Amino acid sequence: MAKLTVKFIPDNKTVEVEKDRTIASAALSAGVPLNAACGGDGVCGRCRVLVRKGQVGALATGRMSLADMRKGLYLACQTTVQSDLEVEVPAESRLDMDRLSAEEIDRRLKGFYGPSEDVQSLEAAAPVKPAFTGSALTEKLYLELPPPTLQDCISDLERLYRQIQAQKDYIPEHAGLAAIRLLGELLRSAQWKVTATVGKRYGIIELLDVEPGDTASRNFGLVFDIGTTTVSGQLVDLQSARVLGTRATYNKQASFGSDVITRIMYAQKEEGLEKLHQAVVESMNAITHDLAAENSIDLNDVTCVVCAGNTTMIHLLLRIDPTYIRREPYVATANFIPVARAHEAGILVNPRALLFCLPGVASYVGGDVTAGVLACGLDTADDVNILIDIGTNGEVVVGNKEFLVCAAASAGPAFEGSGVSCGMRSSIGAIQKVTIDPKAFAVRYETIGSAPARGICGSGYIDCIAAMLTCGLLDKDGKIKAIDNPRIRATGAGREFVLAAAGENGCQADIVITEADIDNIKRAKAAIYAAVVSLLKHISLDFPAIKRIFIAGGFGTSLDIASAITIGLLPALKKETFVFVGNSSLTGARNTILSEEACATADEIAHKMTYCELSVEPGYMEEYMAALFFPHTDIARFGKK
Amino acid sequence: MAKLTVKFIPDNKTVEVEKDRTIASAALSAGVPLNAACGGDGVCGRCRVLVRKGQVGALATGRMSLADMRKGLYLACQTTVQSDLEVEVPAESRLDMDRLSAEEIDRRLKGFYGPSEDVQSLEAAAPVKPAFTGSALTEKLYLELPPPTLQDCISDLERLYRQIQAQKDYIPEHAGLAAIRLLGELLRSAQWKVTATVGKRYGIIELLDVEPGDTASRNFGLVFDIGTTTVSGQLVDLQSARVLGTRATYNKQASFGSDVITRIMYAQKEEGLEKLHQAVVESMNAITHDLAAENSIDLNDVTCVVCAGNTTMIHLLLRIDPTYIRREPYVATANFIPVARAHEAGILVNPRALLFCLPGVASYVGGDVTAGVLACGLDTADDVNILIDIGTNGEVVVGNKEFLVCAAASAGPAFEGSGVSCGMRSSIGAIQKVTIDPKAFAVRYETIGSAPARGICGSGYIDCIAAMLTCGLLDKDGKIKAIDNPRIRATGAGREFVLAAAGENGCQADIVITEADIDNIKRAKAAIYAAVVSLLKHISLDFPAIKRIFIAGGFGTSLDIASAITIGLLPALKKETFVFVGNSSLTGARNTILSEEACATADEIAHKMTYCELSVEPGYMEEYMAALFFPHTDIARFGKK
Repeated sequence: MAKLTVKFIPDNKTVEVEKDRTIASAALSAGVPLNAACGGDGVCGRCRVLVRKGQVGALATGRMSLADMRKGLYLACQTTVQSDLEVEVPAESRLDMDRLSAEEIDRRLKGFYGPSEDVQSLEAAAPVKPAFTGSALTEKLYLELPPPTLQDCISDLERLYRQIQAQKDYIPEHAGLAAIRLLGELLRSAQWKVTATVGKRYGIIELLDVEPGDTASRNFGLVFDIGTTTVSGQLVDLQSARVLGTRATYNKQASFGSDVITRIMYAQKEEGLEKLHQAVVESMNAITHDLAAENSIDLNDVTCVVCAGNTTMIHLLLRIDPTYIRREPYVATANFIPVARAHEAGILVNPRALLFCLPGVASYVGGDVTAGVLACGLDTADDVNILIDIGTNGEVVVGNKEFLVCAAASAGPAFEGSGVSCGMRSSIGAIQKVTIDPKAFAVRYETIGSAPARGICGSGYIDCIAAMLTCGLLDKDGKIKAIDNPRIRATGAGREFVLAAAGENGCQADIVITEADIDNIKRAKAAIYAAVVSLLKHISLDFPAIKRIFIAGGFGTSLDIASAITIGLLPALKKETFVFVGNSSLTGARNTILSEEACATADEIAHKMTYCELSVEPGYMEEYMAALFFPHTDIARFGKK
Repeated sequence: MAKLTVKFIPDNKTVEVEKDRTIASAALSAGVPLNAACGGDGVCGRCRVLVRKGQVGALATGRMSLADMRKGLYLACQTTVQSDLEVEVPAESRLDMDRLSAEEIDRRLKGFYGPSEDVQSLEAAAPVKPAFTGSALTEKLYLELPPPTLQDCISDLERLYRQIQAQKDYIPEHAGLAAIRLLGELLRSAQWKVTATVGKRYGIIELLDVEPGDTASRNFGLVFDIGTTTVSGQLVDLQSARVLGTRATYNKQASFGSDVITRIMYAQKEEGLEKLHQAVVESMNAITHDLAAENSIDLNDVTCVVCAGNTTMIHLLLRIDPTYIRREPYVATANFIPVARAHEAGILVNPRALLFCLPGVASYVGGDVTAGVLACGLDTADDVNILIDIGTNGEVVVGNKEFLVCAAASAGPAFEGSGVSCGMRSSIGAIQKVTIDPKAFAVRYETIGSAPARGICGSGYIDCIAAMLTCGLLDKDGKIKAIDNPRIRATGAGREFVLAAAGENGCQADIVITEADIDNIKRAKAAIYAAVVSLLKHISLDFPAIKRIFIAGGFGTSLDIASAITIGLLPALKKETFVFVGNSSLTGARNTILSEEACATADEIAHKMTYCELSVEPGYMEEYMAALFFPHTDIARFGKK
């Protein structure tokens, strides 16, 4: 078939495609990072492009008006190439695929945004932080072997094992052929002075590699938190247990949909699973490359990789078909993932390096939650604590050393800026803090990076709604009151409140919060609050019994606790109850790579955690309905009357 | 470089080679099976070819006379291609690469050749034959899983494991990614009725494969004895423990040398290791293919392969560099071989099938000997027994349930027909039984397959020397007496005795035994006898303490015990002491594949066996020197005076 040419600007990238392919698929081929939150189904309306030259075929979609199309605006995923084209991808239709700044990473990991200094960090709440013993999952051992004689003529491999046993309390039980094929020559040319890399696969000791000379000081590990939105990685020196660097980047899978459901649907398309797999591995390899370059280490010296991620992300990383995660009764192919080699997943480190994926509990409570429990030490505490991890979805764990129960709250991606009119992820230009003057309703806001406002992120919505409630702009149901103020505008779909007007402080378009947006956030916060309350009821406890609430996740880090209590997302407990733990998934993965004991503990945690399927949990729906108010129908719970 | 054409007849195969390549290397490329006992070093003189047309360049070699070269006869390994050639490969220069006949296999395995019916078989000596419990190394389990519900929503893999645990006393601890990537779809399309293949790797249970429906009755294993000369294979039904078929073929490595030393030297040449590896795997795959076709089974249903072989053969099979096996202090890279996948060695069965190699003890006491000990139950007997395995070399084990000691006798390949003037392997046309009339010295002989005599195999030499001794043709030192008889001829290198003259019964050339041949056999038998005696001395025992002597190996099967005692190869014990165990290496491999317990026992045997390096064993040289007579310097040992 004849090929047509599509040129993308301002990228200035040109690609050849067949007639009738969509502009979105052409953008994918060209490597132009188009926002496709819904996975290319024409639903989210985020992939608007301007067709400057050429003929296109456009499918009917309610997301675009005839007026837009007359201006040359089309949804890239619903528009086909009919001739050579020139297509402009505007900034708002673009995925910000740049790697996050070091400062941004720091904020995300440390868990402090703005004025929340009086909320404790995980470090400050030290007593709950577990200290693990046992050595790293891979070790390099420098060995000086006695050369063989006629009297001592055991095989080379046994000689190596004997020396390992003399130095350590273990003996390898397994070795790959690759590790021993050239062992004879290697031992002799190294004059019997070698370094053995040993891996520990849940109690099974494996000889991974043998190198000449003493390389014991060059043993590195990578840990990853694979989020639906963000992939974070850390390089760890496995000998000294020091963290050498941290990086985060957007998960390149975002081009195929913003949440796990759209990704699973995309995985069912032809080559879909492969593309999703490649996308996440590219994100990981980019981080790996940067961390290695930054620290001048050889990737061959990376001998272990530990990943924590939600169940879908881990399936996609390992190229395991995720189809049944989204079909009732929501079953994963595997929650406990066998130890594999990193290269089997496409991760570019030592080809013999081990890959551990932290075990999950259920389709919507993955290894990232297990890692969080491990990092916070929920499983070792005498007191009952709660872990709330709010990412693209929300997971809740309640427990102590006796029991652990968990649930997934179907909060949806509203807190990640999806499904809300001016929503965006917490990246540069996102409004993250809002205060409203109670008299004139003047708005003051802060954006990430102090850049011109581009949209509102999750913490911004919570702050904004809390402020609107406080100054009487909003009723308990979330409707905007009919007050005569230029910031309050009536639209066909109800009222909206203008946070920033176009032209103000470099802002390109009006940034508003609509009643529909408020309703979305209300449903999200209700889902999480109801999940917490239902889990407590499940074990016949109530909030006074709770010692601490750990707040984890990229979102959690920028959250204002007072605002969250005001809108009823979090219970009205004393401030010292709340502990920001930042990316506890990454912390748990780091604990794991540095300690066999932690690795075994993570396995025990996943086995021990009881999963509550909220959709069949008695009373959950009632709790959810009751939480669909600001802060709640039972306002006594929030210290009000 | 311009290519030249070499045509081989009678094969009628043509190949293009570069100028200056040897005819032997051209034959290898053409797939013409040339005998190259010395590995192409011009030493053995076995690769004579007739150059019918074209120009060659010949290196000087003492193996060829000028007269031969005038006739157009050359050593293929020492002669280079200088123009297009036509080369005839005569029958005697050809490796008989045809697969052995079923009858021949039967003889080799059952261990009965000719008149030895009064010597016990392993079956007859049943009390020593161990019965192993425990199931096969791979099992197929038919499972009917309860479909998941919202109340029972564990992952697919855990569901599978739970059902395995319900049916068996184990739970898999490991699974490869390949086995689980498509598990979700497979379980559902099979309506939750599947067959799991489970492998047992020394106590570690692995999920190897999952298939739809009930395939539990189709689970097969292959066991191999990888000899330097012969590769034998057996197809086993792992469910019923029945042997479905047995095949043997020459080890294709024979093209690169007849013994392990020449093969190890060949392995050091460029691509040498790879070629040797390919050759043995081709031999194994040919057997595999034939056995599968004969029994109409799908190779994908072969889930386990167990190999027994000498240390060098196992190294070459796994492409492990064998260099240091032949350099003092004779150290193998590995005696205990990790469990691998059959496909890693190139064996064409189910890609997830496990490959076990029986553990060896030392460089010259390999897994074939361990298998023999296992098969004969030396390690469980109250009485002290001896196992003598005579193949291309000789290995001896002495022991009982308390102890096991072993040694390798450097007997050389004389018993396999190498290094003796008319020697050949025990294949069609080999003289295997000889009687000599004590008056006229008339000779009666039997050949394998009753074919015209082509040469003499090991048992033929032993019979012949025994007969010559009995009728006074030979002195105790092995010199042929100066008797006036047309069968006795003087040559420049001493006397020779004519067993068969050219023209007689279709015989193409004189078949003789020379004094040099007798000397060769004498040194070989002395090495084995001295090894046995030295091992007994090592543990302060003597022959009367021995209950049984097990005779194993392709050679052992055709041995006449009386003749072997007459020449002093075996001690003069009662006939019922001797038990022919045929290919005990293959039997031990079959025991192993059928029983985890046997597999663990083989590992224990290899750990328990004490290796005696005879070259440094006090008294060994004296024993060897004393045995360099027929039957021995101390003839009282053989009931004579």
